[in-house]
Amino acid sequence: MALAIGVDIGGTKVAAGVVDEGGQVLAMVRRPTPGDVAGTEDAIAESVAELADRYDVVAVGVGAAGWIATDRATVLFSPHLAWRDEPLRDALVERLSMPVTVENDANAAAWAEYRYGAARGERVVACVTLGTGIGGGLVVSGVLYRGAFGVACEWGHMAVVPDGRRCACGNRGCWEMYASGTALARDARELAEVSPVSAHRLLLLAGGDPARLTGTDVTMAAREGDAVAVEIFTAMGRWLGRGIANLAAVIDPSVVVIGGGVSEAGDLLLAPAREAFAATLTGRGFRPVAPVRLAALGPDAGLVGAADLARRRV
Amino acid sequence: MALAIGVDIGGTKVAAGVVDEGGQVLAMVRRPTPGDVAGTEDAIAESVAELADRYDVVAVGVGAAGWIATDRATVLFSPHLAWRDEPLRDALVERLSMPVTVENDANAAAWAEYRYGAARGERVVACVTLGTGIGGGLVVSGVLYRGAFGVACEWGHMAVVPDGRRCACGNRGCWEMYASGTALARDARELAEVSPVSAHRLLLLAGGDPARLTGTDVTMAAREGDAVAVEIFTAMGRWLGRGIANLAAVIDPSVVVIGGGVSEAGDLLLAPAREAFAATLTGRGFRPVAPVRLAALGPDAGLVGAADLARRRV
Repeated sequence: MALAIGVDIGGTKVAAGVVDEGGQVLAMVRRPTPGDVAGTEDAIAESVAELADRYDVVAVGVGAAGWIATDRATVLFSPHLAWRDEPLRDALVERLSMPVTVENDANAAAWAEYRYGAARGERVVACVTLGTGIGGGLVVSGVLYRGAFGVACEWGHMAVVPDGRRCACGNRGCWEMYASGTALARDARELAEVSPVSAHRLLLLAGGDPARLTGTDVTMAAREGDAVAVEIFTAMGRWLGRGIANLAAVIDPSVVVIGGGVSEAGDLLLAPAREAFAATLTGRGFRPVAPVRLAALGPDAGLVGAADLARRRV
Repeated sequence: MALAIGVDIGGTKVAAGVVDEGGQVLAMVRRPTPGDVAGTEDAIAESVAELADRYDVVAVGVGAAGWIATDRATVLFSPHLAWRDEPLRDALVERLSMPVTVENDANAAAWAEYRYGAARGERVVACVTLGTGIGGGLVVSGVLYRGAFGVACEWGHMAVVPDGRRCACGNRGCWEMYASGTALARDARELAEVSPVSAHRLLLLAGGDPARLTGTDVTMAAREGDAVAVEIFTAMGRWLGRGIANLAAVIDPSVVVIGGGVSEAGDLLLAPAREAFAATLTGRGFRPVAPVRLAALGPDAGLVGAADLARRRV
């Protein structure tokens, strides 16, 4: 059984794990993410070395938020890290003397859900990862779709509202401005500022300061049954469903998998999403409606997928 | 050299042609499109028989507006014809005693542009066919993309304006309500009704009746240099470019090909489209910008593509 190491570079931590062919994580190490390029490479290399010391591994897969060129070696751009046209793979190969593959983190997560999770055996898998923004991944007939330049599936940046909310990408009205952890926190803050009375439960969770409200607070309040928190999730779920209908118009998936931290809210989010999807799918009534499922693998999906992709390339 | 017959079922006419392996049309016949299912099948069968009498052909490809199931045999739904779950292929095979393939017309046109036209040798081809609505086709690594249920690439029905213009599909705000022949005529009619003075040239072309204005009138006036007609194209071109940016976020194409009758306006449409695409492409500056090209094959693209797809399946 060939083992591989998957590394997930997040905004706050670098997580590395040894993954077997069944998708099981046998061991993990975590380090805080350094703010600079050299430090991040050190953190990856040290994490891998620590695990490779204990396990016989054949390859390393690195999943990173950002745009990875079709060579799966170069990070064209990363929103959180300082990588710009960074030859990450070659730098790591030199330090680790092992085959290395670099992949977009949401692509890696989609691959993991296809191989081991909620989309096993599906022909066309569209994965929507809800975190700070929206990550996307697409698996078609058992092949990860990467597009012409390696930057496909950035569907968080479909414009769904003309001249809408300003997005971190520089545009306005991007889908992820209406359906993501950022959208959740933004809606909650706006409510708490304008109507502290109706947001009193949310404000309690944030110590009374609207600016400190997070998506996690909204999830917690909604789970307790707080009516306005549930409303915020319902409104966001509708945006999620409408965006999925757009994806279905373009891609025609056999299944849509919703992952990422925000998806932990489960049916609070998925029930309105499914409803809006079914109500706005073009051609409804004359085509099958793809099921919208919760991701099965949790926060390790990116790491598991990156490891498997790397193993398959050797 | 194997010959095949391609048939294009349009709203007004059925066109059939004998197509060689180089994509050349050797002979053509045309009939008016009957309004009913039996009559349409008759028109297809008679056209094919007439051509097969004169040429030795190996297969028949039928391109039709509508949703074709993954079996390439069944028309799930056609907006203009009365087909609903129609086993068109089997009906034609029985009458013609020849292999028959049924394909969505915009898919067939995209395939033709990839094989013989503006997208030869390209890795990821996104084709936008501007007619009454928007047809879409996608060719990835030399394979026509069909999605899970055969109904992919309906990108005319991405919602780009929340609660926007009502679309024939039943939804609101679909892209094709803002970029298509229908959108062109709608804008011109609205202008002519509200401001006959500024639309005087357009009104002349329509015999003084705003309701009779067509997309073709707008193209003619714009080509003559009529300022408001040029403005209508510019506004529509911007919508076209913004939609292409959405497609690029999802698909990451190496080239975008613009075809269909409306594309005959050329740079009147493409110049503002390219500008808006470059200005709204997510991640611009950190990724290549796919070229936006005019289709090369003209109105026979669907027929040529359907013939070639049918030939390749035998």
